[in-house]
Amino acid sequence: MSSPHLAIGILGSTGSIGQSTLQVVDRFPELLRVTALAASRNVETLAAQVRKYRPEVVALVDSSKAKALQSLLKDYTGQIVIGSEGLDTVATWPSVQTLVVAVVGFAGAGPTLAAIDAGKNIALANKETLVAAGAIVMPRARQRRVTIAPIDSEHSAIWQCLRAGERHEVRRIILTASGGPFRSRPLATFGSITPQEALAHPTWRMGPRITIDSATMMNKAFEIIEATWLFDVPPDLVDVVIHPQSVVHSMVEYRDGSVVAQLAIPDMTLPISYALFSPERLEPTLSPPPFDLTKAGSLEFLIPDPDRYPALALARRALAMGPTACAVLNAADEIAVAAFLDGCLSFSGIVRQVDETLDAHQAIQSPTFDDIVAADRWAREYVAGRLSRYPVKAIASVP
Amino acid sequence: MSSPHLAIGILGSTGSIGQSTLQVVDRFPELLRVTALAASRNVETLAAQVRKYRPEVVALVDSSKAKALQSLLKDYTGQIVIGSEGLDTVATWPSVQTLVVAVVGFAGAGPTLAAIDAGKNIALANKETLVAAGAIVMPRARQRRVTIAPIDSEHSAIWQCLRAGERHEVRRIILTASGGPFRSRPLATFGSITPQEALAHPTWRMGPRITIDSATMMNKAFEIIEATWLFDVPPDLVDVVIHPQSVVHSMVEYRDGSVVAQLAIPDMTLPISYALFSPERLEPTLSPPPFDLTKAGSLEFLIPDPDRYPALALARRALAMGPTACAVLNAADEIAVAAFLDGCLSFSGIVRQVDETLDAHQAIQSPTFDDIVAADRWAREYVAGRLSRYPVKAIASVP
Repeated sequence: MSSPHLAIGILGSTGSIGQSTLQVVDRFPELLRVTALAASRNVETLAAQVRKYRPEVVALVDSSKAKALQSLLKDYTGQIVIGSEGLDTVATWPSVQTLVVAVVGFAGAGPTLAAIDAGKNIALANKETLVAAGAIVMPRARQRRVTIAPIDSEHSAIWQCLRAGERHEVRRIILTASGGPFRSRPLATFGSITPQEALAHPTWRMGPRITIDSATMMNKAFEIIEATWLFDVPPDLVDVVIHPQSVVHSMVEYRDGSVVAQLAIPDMTLPISYALFSPERLEPTLSPPPFDLTKAGSLEFLIPDPDRYPALALARRALAMGPTACAVLNAADEIAVAAFLDGCLSFSGIVRQVDETLDAHQAIQSPTFDDIVAADRWAREYVAGRLSRYPVKAIASVP
Repeated sequence: MSSPHLAIGILGSTGSIGQSTLQVVDRFPELLRVTALAASRNVETLAAQVRKYRPEVVALVDSSKAKALQSLLKDYTGQIVIGSEGLDTVATWPSVQTLVVAVVGFAGAGPTLAAIDAGKNIALANKETLVAAGAIVMPRARQRRVTIAPIDSEHSAIWQCLRAGERHEVRRIILTASGGPFRSRPLATFGSITPQEALAHPTWRMGPRITIDSATMMNKAFEIIEATWLFDVPPDLVDVVIHPQSVVHSMVEYRDGSVVAQLAIPDMTLPISYALFSPERLEPTLSPPPFDLTKAGSLEFLIPDPDRYPALALARRALAMGPTACAVLNAADEIAVAAFLDGCLSFSGIVRQVDETLDAHQAIQSPTFDDIVAADRWAREYVAGRLSRYPVKAIASVP
């Protein structure tokens, strides 16, 4: 690297990916420096992070917690920004070279675009940025010559496997999916699935929305869309295979018949490190244990049943409709999942609501960012309006 | 490619790898041209190949079949060379750009060296060239700036996986092994294994020696040695894992904890194509079927039991002793396998004979090629002498 430290900013530093990113910083103290942090509302954790990493700026979105943060950071000499504009402040902070976008929800897309415009490289954990706004984000990133490095394990795997060939030699990108907790549950009992059952993911511990999205496989639907944007491939080149053991994180099949796969222990610090240092693979000071495949048991690969996982077909439908339909897919799902978690919608109802929202959507082929914001808002209101017992405000997700 | 055709020569064109190489030529008629062929004794097949591919030169090692070949090739206007010097003629033939070394046995090493000296790139299927003579071959190839491209599926897999990182980032090379037909046979019954049982390989159809070497896992011992030479890594970086399904052809573990694997349908035309065209991955005119991992069943990975597979420890022992010990390992095994196939030695006796031959060997650290030839000859005579009922001449293998 040209400079001794890579200066990073983190949007969403108190969440799961944010905290894993700071673990990576701890493992490479000579290489990484945190100069900007932003969080939504977890002031205690944020304050502890500020005391430890001494960033130049810290942002807190939830203004009702401003006083609590200020009293916890009395000796802090950096800048404190309160309110949602703090995300943009951190995203465009002058010293930041790479921005880790680890906030959840569509609220991550705007600051990511601002960071791209400011010439920052992006390490992207926020799905909505590409699912909803890939049509805006990717051309902008190419224009500004910044890198969009994926942080999730599947796209990081694909990114690594793509090194074993040229882009025009790719025949298929194969996303692996755990299949979630209901892989072998009788379909006839899907109507009685409770939020508690759906929140028990077999492999990864994640936030509630992504865990439900894993159970419906809507998360894999989003990943199909992300893959088309990240790797500039048509949707029919992206396949999904169920792999319950989650050891193979994804694969690339080349036109000569060779398949290249990436495997690893499920640990988000690996894709985070790769996103920050790529193409370099660095050995952390606390070296990870050798990967013992002989302890992984048998690895299975299964075709996803379209009746069990109707969300996958929705991804292809939304991609065929156009970019705003992908924004609608995401927004409708977010509201439907919240309704399911609150007991206002059945498990099978989630995908059905999303499907019927796509029915009602008029897609725009070459949208502006404002068109995408409008489609996102429309879909939220549309689903919430249909779930009449459900108040819209309580489920707004910004951020 | 700079020229429309890549001109290739094939040593061992009538064997399994030789015939697969010609299949690759058939699939890429616009890209490959055969200008030189050599075979040991199968005159009918060789003559048919000459009529089809019209090489500039053809060599037949077995001089007792010279007349048969000449009468089959009455209209052939190219050059016919009879006797073992024909291997060198083909190896150094002026128009040959890449030499496919598909002969079996130590006899492949000399012509390979001659080809390297003549500036030919090498696509190498002959194990002995690296196992016995890696210490001579690899420095010579670097000096002459020619490529040694592996043709076997394991080393081709590793070569491909190494594209996903830098050499200094490699933590481990993981060779997969099928485990052969005796993976779950009770150890106590190993004394009664017959040649017929040992010749039934679960995955690949190969010649008799390599099939027996698969059953003892001596072939994997050789592959450990080959990997150290091909990829310039110390022996302790090369591990073996049993993978009965033979779907994952081998893997590379990087220091960041990421493991990159190559998978494919068992088909030698894939590593042959990759060896000839690398780094390009070409789509054959008859495109291979998409790789359907969901039909592969469960993939298992097991630690090799050192009592069941004592050959693996012998590879490390030979590597520690020095280059001539690796030549001894190969030569002693060849004689012991021939004795086993002829009913003169028990299955367990194969590895025991090799082990005891290493006991008696005085290794040379920086050998000349003549030292290696002498070690090879000494080991053959030593094992044959111990198996007194067994005549030495009948088992000489050149070629």
